[in-house]
Amino acid sequence: MQQNFADRLESAIRRAGSPAVVGIDPVVERLPAELSGSIDTATQAAAALEQFSRAAIDAAAGSVPAVKINSAFFEVYRHHGVAAFYRSIAHAHARGLLVIADVKRGDIGSTNALYARGHLADPLRDATPSETPDAVTLAGYMGRGAIQAFIDVARETGRGMYVLVRPSDPSADEVHEFGGGRRLYEHLAELVSTWGAAPGLIGSSGLSCVGAVVAPKDERSTRALRHALPHTPFLVPGFGAQGATAESVSWCFRAAGDGAVVNASRSVIYAYEQPAWRERYGEDWRGAIRSACEDFAQQAARIARPS
Amino acid sequence: MQQNFADRLESAIRRAGSPAVVGIDPVVERLPAELSGSIDTATQAAAALEQFSRAAIDAAAGSVPAVKINSAFFEVYRHHGVAAFYRSIAHAHARGLLVIADVKRGDIGSTNALYARGHLADPLRDATPSETPDAVTLAGYMGRGAIQAFIDVARETGRGMYVLVRPSDPSADEVHEFGGGRRLYEHLAELVSTWGAAPGLIGSSGLSCVGAVVAPKDERSTRALRHALPHTPFLVPGFGAQGATAESVSWCFRAAGDGAVVNASRSVIYAYEQPAWRERYGEDWRGAIRSACEDFAQQAARIARPS
Repeated sequence: MQQNFADRLESAIRRAGSPAVVGIDPVVERLPAELSGSIDTATQAAAALEQFSRAAIDAAAGSVPAVKINSAFFEVYRHHGVAAFYRSIAHAHARGLLVIADVKRGDIGSTNALYARGHLADPLRDATPSETPDAVTLAGYMGRGAIQAFIDVARETGRGMYVLVRPSDPSADEVHEFGGGRRLYEHLAELVSTWGAAPGLIGSSGLSCVGAVVAPKDERSTRALRHALPHTPFLVPGFGAQGATAESVSWCFRAAGDGAVVNASRSVIYAYEQPAWRERYGEDWRGAIRSACEDFAQQAARIARPS
Repeated sequence: MQQNFADRLESAIRRAGSPAVVGIDPVVERLPAELSGSIDTATQAAAALEQFSRAAIDAAAGSVPAVKINSAFFEVYRHHGVAAFYRSIAHAHARGLLVIADVKRGDIGSTNALYARGHLADPLRDATPSETPDAVTLAGYMGRGAIQAFIDVARETGRGMYVLVRPSDPSADEVHEFGGGRRLYEHLAELVSTWGAAPGLIGSSGLSCVGAVVAPKDERSTRALRHALPHTPFLVPGFGAQGATAESVSWCFRAAGDGAVVNASRSVIYAYEQPAWRERYGEDWRGAIRSACEDFAQQAARIARPS
């Protein structure tokens, strides 16, 4: 049995001095010119995504504890992209970062056992173990059947998961705000809290390896979620491009200033597109990303200060 | 603009004389001995899955209009498996079958645009166009933002999708039966129906390219769903191994006997494990699958008879 994922993450946050998680969401159309030169095939596109991801990971490595790598952006290029996705995970591990694989998988019983094997368990012989992420994002809409196989792997391997409870996109409210008095997101939150309280899942940090994706909306409901889920680590999306403010993100931390990580993706990895960074860094897009990571890490550290 | 997916599927059903869809869910542990001999690596495992899938597709090709290929079973072996998944799709197309890729993807806005590009749009130059499925299964819990990109691709290319509305696994009821009077699955059904009624999505069959995954539960609620969604094609899972009965499946068809396909996976592709088929076919596992496909196709045809 390995050390609990939540404990490993909290240690990494202390070492980095920040709960910032940089999201790796690479699209060919936004890559720096030197990488997007002649892309005609999926092979070339996947290679360009991988080069960019490695550079963004290198830029993040000094200042944050973890990266979140989004599978969708690699799956565009099918098996070529998937190979690049796993190599990017290995690269982040080589740079000392924890890795959250943003895969949002979720299916019933026997199918889900296979997703858990593929996405969170240790691989067969010809895959590098360092290609296995430390945690995944999951869709829990199929109930415990969609989660249990991941929990079993997590308990055994010291890995973890974040289940979607309140996504950042307003369109998700169509479903997550459903319900008369009690809303679907509150019901999901309760399920996640229950699943994560099973024996062997809560670490010495008092946090479970079963976390929740929680975008802050209004203050009352966000504080209520934090209060209702004392052992659930939050992955807070949408800082930066998706518009969550520093104040709203602060409601997602526990009073001690722990229990959450904050994610920013596009606002950081495409920093070189923004006039302010461009002025400072010119063609040095790697430098712009590095500075943006440092800035983001400092912002997140201020947000997480104990209240 | 291509012919509507629902129309293409209804034509294929008429040609095959059955609305049966065989599910390709291959696991290494259940493969016939001749395929599972020496599997140590992900490369070998993926190759074995592909061989078996090709054989199961060949066995199904004479009697059913379509196969559903489940991505989870291939993703276990990461990019090796994903390559085998796409080659299996191409093989099914070569055998004249329509292909539903069971991927259950679902994410917010910009991420979902990429999932739609990767899973339903035509590929870049070095991927075979026949590797693109005709339809995908989707998780619609992120609301319209998780679906719109797929709808745009479907309208353009004559492809389609099935959104999870009422999954077969009892554990999914924890979430789908949530709600006071009105349940979440009813809310999801209404959303799917609305999304599928947009201009250009309903074909000459009166059916939309936006379908729903609907497992039959009790008679009243199943008939109510069929009645409330007159233009929505249903993908009915769980016939056979998951225990949906012929009678309950019949409630999912429209009065004319159209508007649904019935899926059976493990009860068909692992027919050679069952004593009855073993007695008849001995080591000829291909023959056992072929006969099980024919039986299943005939059962489904009887279920779908106009009422």
